[in-house]
Amino acid sequence: MSRFFSQRYRDLTPYTPGEQPKDTLYLKLNTNESPFPPSPLAQKYAKNASGSLNLYSDPESTILKKAGAKALGVPESRLIFTNSSDETLNFAFMAFCDENRPAIFPDITYGFYSVFAQVHCVPYREIPLKDDFTVDPDDYSGMRGTIFLANPNAPTGVLLPLTAIESILRSNPENIVVVDEAYIDFGGESAIALLPEYENLLVVRTFSKSRSLAGGRLGIGIANESLIRDLKTIQYSINPYTVNSMTMAAGAGALEDTEYFEKTRRKIIENRAVLTEKLEALGFSVLPSAANFVFAKGPKISGEALYLKLRERKS
Amino acid sequence: MSRFFSQRYRDLTPYTPGEQPKDTLYLKLNTNESPFPPSPLAQKYAKNASGSLNLYSDPESTILKKAGAKALGVPESRLIFTNSSDETLNFAFMAFCDENRPAIFPDITYGFYSVFAQVHCVPYREIPLKDDFTVDPDDYSGMRGTIFLANPNAPTGVLLPLTAIESILRSNPENIVVVDEAYIDFGGESAIALLPEYENLLVVRTFSKSRSLAGGRLGIGIANESLIRDLKTIQYSINPYTVNSMTMAAGAGALEDTEYFEKTRRKIIENRAVLTEKLEALGFSVLPSAANFVFAKGPKISGEALYLKLRERKS
Repeated sequence: MSRFFSQRYRDLTPYTPGEQPKDTLYLKLNTNESPFPPSPLAQKYAKNASGSLNLYSDPESTILKKAGAKALGVPESRLIFTNSSDETLNFAFMAFCDENRPAIFPDITYGFYSVFAQVHCVPYREIPLKDDFTVDPDDYSGMRGTIFLANPNAPTGVLLPLTAIESILRSNPENIVVVDEAYIDFGGESAIALLPEYENLLVVRTFSKSRSLAGGRLGIGIANESLIRDLKTIQYSINPYTVNSMTMAAGAGALEDTEYFEKTRRKIIENRAVLTEKLEALGFSVLPSAANFVFAKGPKISGEALYLKLRERKS
Repeated sequence: MSRFFSQRYRDLTPYTPGEQPKDTLYLKLNTNESPFPPSPLAQKYAKNASGSLNLYSDPESTILKKAGAKALGVPESRLIFTNSSDETLNFAFMAFCDENRPAIFPDITYGFYSVFAQVHCVPYREIPLKDDFTVDPDDYSGMRGTIFLANPNAPTGVLLPLTAIESILRSNPENIVVVDEAYIDFGGESAIALLPEYENLLVVRTFSKSRSLAGGRLGIGIANESLIRDLKTIQYSINPYTVNSMTMAAGAGALEDTEYFEKTRRKIIENRAVLTEKLEALGFSVLPSAANFVFAKGPKISGEALYLKLRERKS
């Protein structure tokens, strides 16, 4: 670091994004992207938008709000669109955590939560998963802090049932509960259904997995109007136009093309079952996954050794 | 705000972006966009990128760094590409300002600087412009804080000569000087030329004005390697993949298409001279502008009254 770097961040360890190999020799699995290209409608809309990039993008993301409200069954006023779900999470750490409101999340979960806490000088507490890699909702009862739960969890793929999410929401009326649903389209029930009853709920979604738009950078925050206003206050104090016009158009196309969405996510779910079966036949133990990846342990070889071997073989 | 909103930001006043009218009845001037569409090469590259959005964008912005190094004449290692120059500025406020290092900028300048300072709980000091709306470099000699100078300045359009920037850099060896060159392509000499000599210089650029990509959201930070590393530490702690693949491609096309860039910016400079002349003939007093806008005062009617009248006439 330079001698000019702020003392606030001198001990900060940034997030390490998954490697992006420049060649295409590998079957790349490390960042849980979709193997399918974006919906043809998404591509068409994005191309159309490229001609008018001289004008600023709509800071209100009007076309996305319209398409999102329809696809998700929530009023437009309960949506905020962002430059990736990481940005939604970043805004949430700023808006809803501070010295007196620590962040609380499982010890095995998305590695970025602890980085967000560090960069915003927010204390955090990690709660151990149970031995079977599940979250015990009782461990999150009546906390004093903001709770972050990836559901399905990463890297385990394990799903927390909606009843468990609801009991955590109910026992934390003074705390925000953030449910990070990056992988929910691959096999879980969304907490969006609980929004009308819980003003302390923020659901976070991404277009990077089930909508095949990782390279477009698009995320959503779904919550009651007052929380959305808080997130917008942060957004408009950092970067009002965070979503570019092409991604806005692509996202609207991806939301409108429900047929493509259903077809591709069904294929991934089907393939997950086949993969799990084949891995188990080879002696792997595989956690039940509700995501587009599986968490498996080999019978003879460590995960790292297996990874290095596959990499060496370029397969 | 909600009752959950962090106490840190309770007094925060967000930035108000310029109005984006939904119809096209107006000659829209309020956000200083380019009247020209993006370069055909930029559009072509962006369209090509839309098919592979299922993969994450390159967090290192390799194609942009290559094109940027060539277009700007600096090594790739001195460049960081961001989701708009606002994002570069946001990273700079985080990396180089804190309780002990206030932000310092003119009293009349880009309105976002004071918002960045507020959101990051950084004290700030505004230094009055001189009566003729120019910056006096002596007012910035030997400061204790991080200096932000928009050059040309907005909303005045007035340019600070490179010799003045250099004297500010020289008298502030312990402080970062950020030169925000959003409008430099319309008539100024860039501070990039000073980079080899001053390790305390950060130049900020945008693709929103002279490159016709406001809706693509793309900015640059140009500085010595150690400052770039600091900015990346912040980026990788907030949102590693901030630039989407289509914008990355469009930006590379805009940088490569020097002919289109030269043609469009020359037209704007020529039109600025005509506009200035016509306004002066109508009795307006017009500041000498080095930007793609002019700062003018009418002889009979206030700016606000004139704006409302033009709006009423939808012209």
